[in-house]
Amino acid sequence: MPAYTHLAAVTLYAGVPERACVIGISFIHERKRVLALLMLCQVNDYGEIPMANTKTLNDLFLDTLKDIYFAEKQILKALPKMARASQSEEGKAGFTQHREETQGQIERLEQVFELIDKPARGKTCEAIQGIIAEGEEIIEEFKGSPALDAGLISSAQAVEHYEIARYGTLIEWATQLGLKDVVPLLQQNLSEEEATDKKLTALAKASANAKGKRAA
Amino acid sequence: MPAYTHLAAVTLYAGVPERACVIGISFIHERKRVLALLMLCQVNDYGEIPMANTKTLNDLFLDTLKDIYFAEKQILKALPKMARASQSEEGKAGFTQHREETQGQIERLEQVFELIDKPARGKTCEAIQGIIAEGEEIIEEFKGSPALDAGLISSAQAVEHYEIARYGTLIEWATQLGLKDVVPLLQQNLSEEEATDKKLTALAKASANAKGKRAA
Repeated sequence: MPAYTHLAAVTLYAGVPERACVIGISFIHERKRVLALLMLCQVNDYGEIPMANTKTLNDLFLDTLKDIYFAEKQILKALPKMARASQSEEGKAGFTQHREETQGQIERLEQVFELIDKPARGKTCEAIQGIIAEGEEIIEEFKGSPALDAGLISSAQAVEHYEIARYGTLIEWATQLGLKDVVPLLQQNLSEEEATDKKLTALAKASANAKGKRAA
Repeated sequence: MPAYTHLAAVTLYAGVPERACVIGISFIHERKRVLALLMLCQVNDYGEIPMANTKTLNDLFLDTLKDIYFAEKQILKALPKMARASQSEEGKAGFTQHREETQGQIERLEQVFELIDKPARGKTCEAIQGIIAEGEEIIEEFKGSPALDAGLISSAQAVEHYEIARYGTLIEWATQLGLKDVVPLLQQNLSEEEATDKKLTALAKASANAKGKRAA
């Protein structure tokens, strides 16, 4: 067996107009001859040789499923705080009812994980953490103010819209991936979030905002 | 002038069933007599005496205006990165065009600040920071994958939905506060965000998702 000793691998030339580079690899063959191999490679906008990324839409679907699973669990924790903070009976009832709905949505997501044969695991979702943190800030700053409920409703609507965006995306991907049993589960969650968003708009118009305005 | 020396102010009793507490304040009058005043106060769920919070819907409107102003500026910075990362010409063109639109939206927000006679200042928006961070994570993890554009579009839709929620809320509040000149400016921004969201959905269906699927 001939002994090829690797000597050096260097990028000899990276040219911009052709978006290409020449790579040289040299070997010492049985300590006698030096062999050199030259290769022409395409480079990307950053002058890097693109590495094959084997990630697919399936991976993206799973990542986003984990993201919304984490988000729903955070929302489940946040809703009782919002119900306690709310100054109106309608607000308290609405947040409490949506907590029950969220529990059902989490269970549906767990069914989706089962259908795609993956363990139900969340992945830290910085977006929902940020949205919830802003809601907590409103509770803190507007505690005792007649405008508090208007603020709580606006936070809840930011949460709903995040979920609407994510479920819309997941349904589109599930359809394209042919995950037929998964689509209705995600669709049911989306429909509930859309209905909640509409209820919140009605609640904002009917009571909380008007209350905030009277004291202004 | 009689010299009342403040001696002590203590909560003597905090009762749960009546949601009330008794506060005692005692004085020494001209170093001779001790005077005591007793007051009955209502307490909140936490046993605290509620302090008047003078914040109104006007404050909430200004806070949320600062929040979306900060968010739009962050989006302005993120869009060129998304355009560079996009693997399709349609994607690149879409993100570049939305950057120009975002510039116009920021100018409209500055007009709103002027109309309500406040300096145009942003307020850190953790929500948009989280949403953008998730988008950057997708760019990192799916670089070179055929599913990258699907991921970029989903991030952009999460951004759009955050803005749709915020503008919807701001328009409702501006209407209630009688800020008539402000409403059309916010309405124009909302309409643009809604149109962008629709375009992104179409783009996802037409190209990026199908591309991601082929390689799956």
